[in-house]
Amino acid sequence: MRPSGRDLSEMRAVSIETGVTKHAEGSCMIRMGDTHVLCTATLENRVPPFIKGSGLGWVTAEYGMLPRSTTSRMRREATSGKQGGRTVEIQRLIGRSLRAGVDRVALGERQITIDCDVIQADGGTRCASITGGWVALRLAVDKLMKAGDIYSDPLIEPVAAVSCGIYAGQPVLDLDYPEDSEAGVDGNFIMLGNKQLIEVQMSAEGATYSRDQMNQLLDLAEKGVGELVSAQRAAVDAA
Amino acid sequence: MRPSGRDLSEMRAVSIETGVTKHAEGSCMIRMGDTHVLCTATLENRVPPFIKGSGLGWVTAEYGMLPRSTTSRMRREATSGKQGGRTVEIQRLIGRSLRAGVDRVALGERQITIDCDVIQADGGTRCASITGGWVALRLAVDKLMKAGDIYSDPLIEPVAAVSCGIYAGQPVLDLDYPEDSEAGVDGNFIMLGNKQLIEVQMSAEGATYSRDQMNQLLDLAEKGVGELVSAQRAAVDAA
Amino acid sequence: MRPSGRDLSEMRAVSIETGVTKHAEGSCMIRMGDTHVLCTATLENRVPPFIKGSGLGWVTAEYGMLPRSTTSRMRREATSGKQGGRTVEIQRLIGRSLRAGVDRVALGERQITIDCDVIQADGGTRCASITGGWVALRLAVDKLMKAGDIYSDPLIEPVAAVSCGIYAGQPVLDLDYPEDSEAGVDGNFIMLGNKQLIEVQMSAEGATYSRDQMNQLLDLAEKGVGELVSAQRAAVDAA
Amino acid sequence: MRPSGRDLSEMRAVSIETGVTKHAEGSCMIRMGDTHVLCTATLENRVPPFIKGSGLGWVTAEYGMLPRSTTSRMRREATSGKQGGRTVEIQRLIGRSLRAGVDRVALGERQITIDCDVIQADGGTRCASITGGWVALRLAVDKLMKAGDIYSDPLIEPVAAVSCGIYAGQPVLDLDYPEDSEAGVDGNFIMLGNKQLIEVQMSAEGATYSRDQMNQLLDLAEKGVGELVSAQRAAVDAA
Amino acid sequence: MRPSGRDLSEMRAVSIETGVTKHAEGSCMIRMGDTHVLCTATLENRVPPFIKGSGLGWVTAEYGMLPRSTTSRMRREATSGKQGGRTVEIQRLIGRSLRAGVDRVALGERQITIDCDVIQADGGTRCASITGGWVALRLAVDKLMKAGDIYSDPLIEPVAAVSCGIYAGQPVLDLDYPEDSEAGVDGNFIMLGNKQLIEVQMSAEGATYSRDQMNQLLDLAEKGVGELVSAQRAAVDAA
Amino acid sequence: MRPSGRDLSEMRAVSIETGVTKHAEGSCMIRMGDTHVLCTATLENRVPPFIKGSGLGWVTAEYGMLPRSTTSRMRREATSGKQGGRTVEIQRLIGRSLRAGVDRVALGERQITIDCDVIQADGGTRCASITGGWVALRLAVDKLMKAGDIYSDPLIEPVAAVSCGIYAGQPVLDLDYPEDSEAGVDGNFIMLGNKQLIEVQMSAEGATYSRDQMNQLLDLAEKGVGELVSAQRAAVDAA
Repeated sequence: MRPSGRDLSEMRAVSIETGVTKHAEGSCMIRMGDTHVLCTATLENRVPPFIKGSGLGWVTAEYGMLPRSTTSRMRREATSGKQGGRTVEIQRLIGRSLRAGVDRVALGERQITIDCDVIQADGGTRCASITGGWVALRLAVDKLMKAGDIYSDPLIEPVAAVSCGIYAGQPVLDLDYPEDSEAGVDGNFIMLGNKQLIEVQMSAEGATYSRDQMNQLLDLAEKGVGELVSAQRAAVDAA
Repeated sequence: MRPSGRDLSEMRAVSIETGVTKHAEGSCMIRMGDTHVLCTATLENRVPPFIKGSGLGWVTAEYGMLPRSTTSRMRREATSGKQGGRTVEIQRLIGRSLRAGVDRVALGERQITIDCDVIQADGGTRCASITGGWVALRLAVDKLMKAGDIYSDPLIEPVAAVSCGIYAGQPVLDLDYPEDSEAGVDGNFIMLGNKQLIEVQMSAEGATYSRDQMNQLLDLAEKGVGELVSAQRAAVDAA
Repeated sequence: MRPSGRDLSEMRAVSIETGVTKHAEGSCMIRMGDTHVLCTATLENRVPPFIKGSGLGWVTAEYGMLPRSTTSRMRREATSGKQGGRTVEIQRLIGRSLRAGVDRVALGERQITIDCDVIQADGGTRCASITGGWVALRLAVDKLMKAGDIYSDPLIEPVAAVSCGIYAGQPVLDLDYPEDSEAGVDGNFIMLGNKQLIEVQMSAEGATYSRDQMNQLLDLAEKGVGELVSAQRAAVDAA
Repeated sequence: MRPSGRDLSEMRAVSIETGVTKHAEGSCMIRMGDTHVLCTATLENRVPPFIKGSGLGWVTAEYGMLPRSTTSRMRREATSGKQGGRTVEIQRLIGRSLRAGVDRVALGERQITIDCDVIQADGGTRCASITGGWVALRLAVDKLMKAGDIYSDPLIEPVAAVSCGIYAGQPVLDLDYPEDSEAGVDGNFIMLGNKQLIEVQMSAEGATYSRDQMNQLLDLAEKGVGELVSAQRAAVDAA
Repeated sequence: MRPSGRDLSEMRAVSIETGVTKHAEGSCMIRMGDTHVLCTATLENRVPPFIKGSGLGWVTAEYGMLPRSTTSRMRREATSGKQGGRTVEIQRLIGRSLRAGVDRVALGERQITIDCDVIQADGGTRCASITGGWVALRLAVDKLMKAGDIYSDPLIEPVAAVSCGIYAGQPVLDLDYPEDSEAGVDGNFIMLGNKQLIEVQMSAEGATYSRDQMNQLLDLAEKGVGELVSAQRAAVDAA
Repeated sequence: MRPSGRDLSEMRAVSIETGVTKHAEGSCMIRMGDTHVLCTATLENRVPPFIKGSGLGWVTAEYGMLPRSTTSRMRREATSGKQGGRTVEIQRLIGRSLRAGVDRVALGERQITIDCDVIQADGGTRCASITGGWVALRLAVDKLMKAGDIYSDPLIEPVAAVSCGIYAGQPVLDLDYPEDSEAGVDGNFIMLGNKQLIEVQMSAEGATYSRDQMNQLLDLAEKGVGELVSAQRAAVDAA
């Protein structure tokens, strides 16, 4: 029933390749099917003005799409003079989600910026950015710990995200672009590795939904996050 | 336990005053406690380019805060040269939510713009904007129907929104600013009058949350939306 | 002869309601007929860089119109990316005018920002902003004096403004929108309570004017300012 | 008493040199003492959208200052990303003033843009721009008439402008920069050749003023405009 | 003598991998040592307004760097609100250079946009963009020809670019970043496959240079372009 | 053969008039035929942040065109909200070129800004800006030396620039606008007075070029620069 032939609760093939750029303190290319996002972590010994002197660290994120990551070419945001509303919304979500898995006292007064740049898009880029962004963050933190700059691990649980939705009347896991553009309900579910919830966003895109349907999507999302966390751990261990 | 002395499941006093500006096709001032939002509806016989010729109508929204609607003065967005990320996020949410209650075929090829301007802020401005925005929309549509421009009512169910959160470890309904700034989890729940869900946004702001807690907040939200819909109906009937 | 049926030298009904927002140090809603402007005063213990360390205070103003304060909806300046020329001209005028009534030594090194936001427009919004802005300023200064932060009153005379013009060949006081859009000559007259002039701006909008006509408009303006100052005093006394 | 040694009612030396650029339809360099402004007129066979099809013509103006036209270098407006409030105010004034001397029916549906670029500034640049701008406009219109494109002269009277102010307690004509920066009252007076008034702008810059003082400045302004109109006529005749 | 140990006339290892994104009409990742640029070609059946109806085609380019493509993170241009001067200069150069190898009559009235996004930077990104950009262009044109949309090949000769400079007093081919940042003279040489020159840009960065030195750099550049054209041909043949 | 009737190696008449504005530390109007550029030098006792404390000086440049310096009016860059790509490219070139002739140690920690504003354009404005800009720079430095602020002359050799191109198949010196718009190859050549090269930029504009042709243009450029340096010296000596 799904355009890709996947089962209702089947994710796309996930791969996470680490060490893909030589300059960043942590990096990976995450591929969820045909969605490919390059995630890099930049470590700086400074924090934003509003927490200067607090002893707390900060994790923030930026998001972008290459102009031809999409079926038809998008205008480059640098030429239109600003980031669009969708971009701002997504990068705020990525930063907020990753911070939920960080002990900011343990991190100490330093900032880690996660850049998520979509090389190829086929649905689910914000979720892939969070999942891959956590791997880049993990690698940058490992570097800090190896260097003896911090002693207590500020990352207690992995953070991962997956989209679920109601497509053709059925709850499905990990929407690809053909599904996403037709789904009646579309949700993003961000969790810790232990399934505690960080953020839930569920929008009616044409049909409203019941609490029952909401719970079915949450069940699927828990399954998906479990698989993503395994992929994150494998990638980090192999790095 | 709550700073305001309210019960855990008690909303702030709600009032909706209609007909507050003489130019708009529909207008109201919604007051949820000390949060006051002026909502106006503007009707235009044109639609955005992407639906021109489709026969479908469009409902969109814009959101703003007066510079001294807040405890300390905010910079006017017109002088900073752009709408901030939070503003853009909110106005996209208002528009999307209201459209979920509109039969765009019945509306016909016209656009209604809902402007939500916060006169005084004390938490929950986006929810108040949606609830008040629907009243302005309702009044503008009533004008269209009275004029005989449309025959079938494009608004089948009211749309209302309320925030709930976990404050001091307890689930509470309708957060005011002192609660909102301390809440560990903060959610916005947008529903039709029949309790079908339009949008759920629940964010961990310091503590992650379980599915049980999520369901407790949903229960509170259903109660709040029920009361808001009564207030909407009373205001429209009295207009 | 006037669309409103007023006499040539008759002002619209003026009302000034104080204390309309709970956050601002001073606030009022001024209504001149159907023109309604919300004026707030914000007090800050800092001054602009160019007078830092001088011991002098500063009073400045910002002006905005809600998108649907007008007959047809105006584009929100925050979305067009900048304040238009008219807005900038008006807010510079408001600030300059109010400063003319301020003893900046007595105010001391602090800044008061007057925000004038037009809720409903029917002509004469800049004059209403100055007249109402002075009330907000007066209330904020009273607060400073009551708190013992300043001892000598920095506001020696009230500041008020009124428009006059030549409409259908006749000099008229306090133009409303239908008159303003047809007037051949349009002037704004800003004075102290003692009728000393602060600013005169008289523009030919279709017909040039003689010195005689200019003097007729000044006579009307003096009458109007007298009435406005009475309204200001009554509002402040009742606050 | 004046820094320049001029009498109270003495203007600076005025010169108007025409034909200073080969591309413009009309051009002049106006010099009022050390204030030098290059004025060009550009003729286009199109009008702004709001008068398209009305048969009426349009005259508009833009104003700029070269970065080092002033004592200390000003930031180039093109690099700061927008025209400042003062620039916008001035160019709106120039356009409005020149239009007051134009019969827009006789001009027909075409637009003339007057660019006023300050090469060297020593006070009074906006008045010099209007006076010189009218000469550029006159020359462009002469070209149209010689070409037989219009038959009836759309310029019935010259337009000229001069500043007057109260300096060291005395009314003085044609303020230069040292006077302008110290003046207690500063006014710009724009008139037709026949002394009918187009625009009066008089601002208290530190001291308010009486109606008597206002009239003294108007007397000076009439004298100044008379001399400027003679200079305009001489320049046009010699072109 | 070179930091990399290369001979004076030795290029970095070049690889060109085609077909790297599924959406673009042509794409490659070009790697010149540690400089990696993703090049995509987008085909559109429309041309810019200035050639509409002329029957001629257009090739244009845009250039960007991912924020962490560099040693220290660069600010994202989309957040700073505009493309910097260096970016604009480079993308104009890429477009101009590629057009020099295109028969725009044969291309017909369509546009090909080449996006060059730097994934990892180590000097020479503009030259890599041109060389890789031509491969993307070639692949997109091949697609057009295979589809029978055009019959006569609009690409007569390949276009390639290489940098040369004077480093530590010696002429060297293909500067990497450590060389580039120390070079006294820095040149970019863009040629057709037959060594006809398209663009030469040679800048003194600290020491001026003689015509003899210029000719030595041109000799190196011809050698380098020869090797690049071989790599382009191999990549296209293998695609 | 040339539209102007000049010989292939004949420059336009060059004149350099110094002391043209009273405020700038150095100024000239350079005229190359109908191309007229006003160049001013501004001296400031501060340097950009990136060299603060280094003891080195800085020379930078800005470039602009008056709206009606061209055949048809150009939009003012201040109104379009940014400097265009061409403007940025040119002003970077002017600054870079002038710095190549400056001993920044001898200049000491101060900045000189060269503003080049095109009053009338007829081709070759960037070259005229460099040649005239150097004269303004020379005059400002002379002032510093006369004042005893610096002892060792930081300007060892003059800097001058000329364009050459291939027009109607022939190499020609100093392109005017009619030639520039038709030339197949267009080059800018910037040199010290001793003919050492600072920058060469040669672009194919329709036809590629051989190394032989490149050398012919360099020969012409050397001749042109020789004549320009004589004009610079004569202007400075007469100042």
